[in-house]
Amino acid sequence: MAYTSEDLRSLKEFYSSQLLTNTVPFWFPRSFDTEYGGFLLMRDADGSLIDDDKAVWIQGRATWLLSTLYNTVEQKPEWLEGARLGYEFLNKYCFDTDGQMFFHVTRDGRPIRKRRYFFSETFYVIAAAAYAKASGDEEAANNARRVFGKCIEFATTPGLLTPKYTDTRPAKGIGVPMIMMNTAQQLRETIGDPRCDEWIDKWITTIETDFVKDDIKCVMEQVAPDGSIIDHIDGRTLNPGHAIEGAWFILHEAKKRNNDPRLINLGCRMLDYMWERGWDKEYGGILYFRDVYDKPVQEYWQDMKFWWPHNEVIIATLLAYLMTGDQKYAEWHKQVHDYSYQHFHDNKNGEWFGYLHRDGSIAQTAKGNLFKGPFHLPRQEWYCMQLLKEYIK
Amino acid sequence: MAYTSEDLRSLKEFYSSQLLTNTVPFWFPRSFDTEYGGFLLMRDADGSLIDDDKAVWIQGRATWLLSTLYNTVEQKPEWLEGARLGYEFLNKYCFDTDGQMFFHVTRDGRPIRKRRYFFSETFYVIAAAAYAKASGDEEAANNARRVFGKCIEFATTPGLLTPKYTDTRPAKGIGVPMIMMNTAQQLRETIGDPRCDEWIDKWITTIETDFVKDDIKCVMEQVAPDGSIIDHIDGRTLNPGHAIEGAWFILHEAKKRNNDPRLINLGCRMLDYMWERGWDKEYGGILYFRDVYDKPVQEYWQDMKFWWPHNEVIIATLLAYLMTGDQKYAEWHKQVHDYSYQHFHDNKNGEWFGYLHRDGSIAQTAKGNLFKGPFHLPRQEWYCMQLLKEYIK
Repeated sequence: MAYTSEDLRSLKEFYSSQLLTNTVPFWFPRSFDTEYGGFLLMRDADGSLIDDDKAVWIQGRATWLLSTLYNTVEQKPEWLEGARLGYEFLNKYCFDTDGQMFFHVTRDGRPIRKRRYFFSETFYVIAAAAYAKASGDEEAANNARRVFGKCIEFATTPGLLTPKYTDTRPAKGIGVPMIMMNTAQQLRETIGDPRCDEWIDKWITTIETDFVKDDIKCVMEQVAPDGSIIDHIDGRTLNPGHAIEGAWFILHEAKKRNNDPRLINLGCRMLDYMWERGWDKEYGGILYFRDVYDKPVQEYWQDMKFWWPHNEVIIATLLAYLMTGDQKYAEWHKQVHDYSYQHFHDNKNGEWFGYLHRDGSIAQTAKGNLFKGPFHLPRQEWYCMQLLKEYIK
Repeated sequence: MAYTSEDLRSLKEFYSSQLLTNTVPFWFPRSFDTEYGGFLLMRDADGSLIDDDKAVWIQGRATWLLSTLYNTVEQKPEWLEGARLGYEFLNKYCFDTDGQMFFHVTRDGRPIRKRRYFFSETFYVIAAAAYAKASGDEEAANNARRVFGKCIEFATTPGLLTPKYTDTRPAKGIGVPMIMMNTAQQLRETIGDPRCDEWIDKWITTIETDFVKDDIKCVMEQVAPDGSIIDHIDGRTLNPGHAIEGAWFILHEAKKRNNDPRLINLGCRMLDYMWERGWDKEYGGILYFRDVYDKPVQEYWQDMKFWWPHNEVIIATLLAYLMTGDQKYAEWHKQVHDYSYQHFHDNKNGEWFGYLHRDGSIAQTAKGNLFKGPFHLPRQEWYCMQLLKEYIK
């Protein structure tokens, strides 16, 4: 199948309308915490608050979203004001005295948990950069660049963060080059930074060289430092939705670089390999984890359907279709789009449920918790809307 | 319903036959690692090896099982020899230089991961104590007592182990008093230790005072230091199968103390409360997590059915029935027994699958991994067999 230009126009309308009349209004303005700053995002299906704690990742992501909507969709004062609440909360309460960020804080900003990763920091960078662009705040721009520098340091200095494992069996994950690439892309597109292009090149090379395995048509989630497969349970575990998120970061980069054919090819290979491994041929939807050799996966929720891989696959398939014209990608896009809006979308209250059983039934009703908030779904709807606008022109 | 004495005799035969001709032969002797010591336990449904790594908890638990079978069922040289392999591997490779134990090691005993808990140590205590009884090895008895002392120190000295959370919102879990009570019970029943009775009393008091909430008919999984409910996602999360394991530890203690009516009442209350909250009235089986106020549970696998809660509930209901004669417990026992052997048991290869979807379908086929091995199922079959022998007499 191919999408006609009418199909594309109606897709654009659909994403735009979902984003602006369904997804964003579920969260805002009701989640603005005008008392303590930041956002109250842990909400049940109907929007009622489950918990008033704040997940630092998601405070950053929501700040990014509101700033990005302001920067690219409409200069609504409510969005800028909301972004300011988030940005100030992050600065005021989410940094430890050693400069690292917390993971989980109370409503009034007292720390509950700090983790051995720097993802809070990467989300801070995209939040501060987008907020700097929206507000013109030079200090926010400096903060974004400074913390980006810290992230590079964390990503490239082994042992700087407390390790979870001994060094008996060293491993590296695809998560770090992926998130760093996307962080650099965001930084470049908002306030600019001279370091971005070079680092993006390096991270793409790392992904291509060490994680993409053409011989077995697979993108690994973790590998040994030399890129070899670690034939133990953890080393064999694949995360198809995550790898496909990496695929669209690379396709996005290809687009920025005048449709660089090498990068288009790389992104499409990653998408092809992991669609084949991740798409559930029995029930539809993207399976959460797979084993590279089809052995049992240890993580208990391995065959559940989570909202966010579907957001990533919707973006990746649409981008691949628009960039290559390959009809296979239109078919895949339609499959994952239809599955997702039929199964995840909450027709009654708006937004998406987060967690389905393998058979597509709803496992639990939360719209927001420590790990889910206003990010993957609105980012998908926003990205696809913008992308379609561009291609329709 | 009531069980007739014929029912009880046939149940005893069933558990005995399952244990000795189905469950234990799935694991042994093929899992003995005669090259490096210890056991190779990470196996798929058909017994093929998924991973040759070793989970320290399960090395200890398997050592306990083999020693216990030798001590209580039959003095088979194979069982004693297997227990020795496990005990020596634990001593040789599973302790860090600071005296704490690892969580996960390679086949040849190199450490992969150490965790911020002391459960490896508690399983070492029951392994060394049972092995000491089986072998007559005095050093093993001394090791069991020495490490038990370390466990008491960890359990009673806040801050001795690296905490996962800040002290903003202090909490304590039911896991520590539960496992310490059971460790002390095992130690007392194998090699004896003068500290056990007093500590068991203290841990039961902690459970009763701080975790059992009669006003809302609930056993909490974690509470604030003063026993109050922490009204946030983690604090509200209940683990019914775990609480019911605690119930049977207390009923077991009641039995040792000439059917102490206060302890029988406490154990039965815990069982009653958590059966009501945990038994899935739609599909049968024990739900993994619940929220005390029925809000959404964050852990993704919250409504899956895991093997081990079913083992605990089979023991608890049988023990409650035999100790009280209350027919309700025979009904519950029959329900959970029938559900479990119908859904978890692998008719083809023996042993049980570990992980079912809520609707009872099999989610993945591993019989052993980092968290599952020869423990909960054979312990249940062994405990019920011994218990029924005692009551039939």
